[in-house]
Amino acid sequence: MLSLEVIYQAAERIAAYTHRTPILSSSSLDQLFGKRLFLKAEHLQKTGSFKARGAVNAALQLERPRGLLAVSSGNHAQAVAYAAYILKVPALIVMPEDASRFKKAGTRAYGAEIYDRGVTVENREEVAHTLTLETGYSFIHPFNDPRVMAGQGTIALELAAQVPDLDAVLVAVGGGGMISGVAAAMKALAPQVRVIGVEPEVANDAQRSLAAGRRIALEQAPKTVADGVRTLSLGEYPWEVIRERVDEIVSVPEEAILEAQRLLMSRTKQVVEPTGALPLAPLLTGHPLPERLGIVVCGGNWMP
Amino acid sequence: MLSLEVIYQAAERIAAYTHRTPILSSSSLDQLFGKRLFLKAEHLQKTGSFKARGAVNAALQLERPRGLLAVSSGNHAQAVAYAAYILKVPALIVMPEDASRFKKAGTRAYGAEIYDRGVTVENREEVAHTLTLETGYSFIHPFNDPRVMAGQGTIALELAAQVPDLDAVLVAVGGGGMISGVAAAMKALAPQVRVIGVEPEVANDAQRSLAAGRRIALEQAPKTVADGVRTLSLGEYPWEVIRERVDEIVSVPEEAILEAQRLLMSRTKQVVEPTGALPLAPLLTGHPLPERLGIVVCGGNWMP
Repeated sequence: MLSLEVIYQAAERIAAYTHRTPILSSSSLDQLFGKRLFLKAEHLQKTGSFKARGAVNAALQLERPRGLLAVSSGNHAQAVAYAAYILKVPALIVMPEDASRFKKAGTRAYGAEIYDRGVTVENREEVAHTLTLETGYSFIHPFNDPRVMAGQGTIALELAAQVPDLDAVLVAVGGGGMISGVAAAMKALAPQVRVIGVEPEVANDAQRSLAAGRRIALEQAPKTVADGVRTLSLGEYPWEVIRERVDEIVSVPEEAILEAQRLLMSRTKQVVEPTGALPLAPLLTGHPLPERLGIVVCGGNWMP
Repeated sequence: MLSLEVIYQAAERIAAYTHRTPILSSSSLDQLFGKRLFLKAEHLQKTGSFKARGAVNAALQLERPRGLLAVSSGNHAQAVAYAAYILKVPALIVMPEDASRFKKAGTRAYGAEIYDRGVTVENREEVAHTLTLETGYSFIHPFNDPRVMAGQGTIALELAAQVPDLDAVLVAVGGGGMISGVAAAMKALAPQVRVIGVEPEVANDAQRSLAAGRRIALEQAPKTVADGVRTLSLGEYPWEVIRERVDEIVSVPEEAILEAQRLLMSRTKQVVEPTGALPLAPLLTGHPLPERLGIVVCGGNWMP
C-alpha cells in the first residue's frame, strides 16, 4: 500500500519542477449549489494537468535512463515529455491516432516524438511494449505505478494544508492513479474527509468494481467527452488502494460533465477540459454531498 | 482633467464592491515574446470585466436614484446591472439586437431588464435618451463620464502598486473610458511608464485622432471581433485626457486579436474575450515595445 512517507518524499522530489497550485473559490458557484467549493487548480499545474506530478516523480527515480516512453491519451504524454526535458533525454509517446490534436501539439511542443500510426486505445500498450524493447527507453505507466500514484498523492498533501476542514474531496477516476494517491494521503492525514471518485456513466467500471469488491473492466473503450478517463479498467496497484480507502464512486451523465465545464468557464473564467470539470458534475445531478468540498480540477488542456 | 485625487476617492468608494484583481504571469508567454508580461486580470473582476469599477463609482455618487439606465454592447450592461443590485434599484439596459447572447444572459442574471427591440449601435443613444425621460432613471454613460473614467483609473492605482517598475502599460481603446482613467492615474504616479492604447485596425479612430490632434469618428459601426470596442469615436471627456496623457495608439489586425485570445487561453488557462486579449496583440505583430509590460486583460465574458 502507498504510505504517507513515500508521498511526502515525492513532494520533496518534485517541488522544484511542479507548482503548488492555488485553491480557487467562487461565491457565485457556492451560491448556486449551496455549498462551499474549494477548487484545487491543477489546470494551472506545469503541462496543464496534475499528470506532471506523477511523471516527474517516477522519472526522477530512474537510474541513468536513455529516454522515456509512455502511452497516453494526452495529459500524461505532455507530463512525460516535460519529465524527459528535465532529465535532458528524449521522449517517445505512443498515442491513439484519434487523440486530441491540441494535446498532440502540446506534447510535440515539449520536444517529444509521437508514435501514433495504427495506434488505438486497445492496442497501445502492446505497441509500447514492442517500442520499449526496441529503444531501451524507460516506460512510465500513466497510472499503474506506485511512483506515479505517490506523485499524484501530493495533490492531497497540499489540499489538506490549504483547506484544513474539508468534508469531502471529489476526484476524477480513470485508471485510478490520481484517486489512489489522493485517498492514500488524505486518509492518512485527515481520515474524516470522504474521498469520492467521479466517473462518466458510460465508463463506470470503477463504480461497479467498488460495488462488486473486484476489478471489473469495460469491454471496449468508453465514448465519453472526458477524454482523460477513457481507460478500460483501474490499474492493479491503484485498485489495491481504492478498495480500501475510497468511500464512494459516483457516475455522471455526459451532459452534466459538459455543463460543469461551461459553469467553471463562465463563473471562474478558467479554461478546464471536460475531465477537469468531471468532479464538479455530481453537484449538477443533485447527488447528496456534504458542505465543504475539495474539487480537484485536474486539467485545462482544451481549446474551443 | 481627471485628478489623481478623484481616482483615489473612486478607489475608496468602490473598494467594498469590487476586487483588487491579481497580476498573472506566464513564463511561457515571457519566453515566447522575450519580454516580461504582467497581466492585470480584470476578467476576474466582479461581473467579469473592469466595467464594474466605473459603473459602481458613478452609481454610488447618485442621490436617491429611481433606477439606472445604460447603453451597452455588453460588459457595461452587466456592470450597471450589478451597480443597481448594490443600490437596490431597477436597471434598464439598452442593447443592440445583435449583441452577444452570452452577455445578454449575464445582464439578465444580475436582475436587469433589457431593451433591445430595433436597437442598433447607431440609434442606441437616442433610444436611451427617450427611455431616460420616460422612466426618470439615472443614465450612466459607458465612457463619456468623469465618474466612470475615475473608476476605471483605479486599475492603474493597483497596477502601479503591484508592479512598481513597469516600462509601459497596454490598454484596449474603444470609447476611451478605461485608457483615459489609466493614463491620468499612471502619468500622475509614474510618468515614466508609457501608456499605449490598442485598437483594431478596422476601428482605428483613436489612432487617427491622436495623429490628427482632433477627435475623428468612424462613419459606421466597425466590424471587429473585439466587441467591447465597437464604438464610433472617443468620448469628449476621455479625449481631453487621451490627447494629453496617452503616448501612442497601436492598431492591430483581427487575426492578431484572435491569436492573442488563443494564446492567453492555452498558456494561462484563462477565459478572456477578444477585447480582453486586444492589448496583447501588438506583441504578435512585432510592434516595437519595451521590456516590462503591464497588459490590462479587461474582460472574460466569452463562451465558445
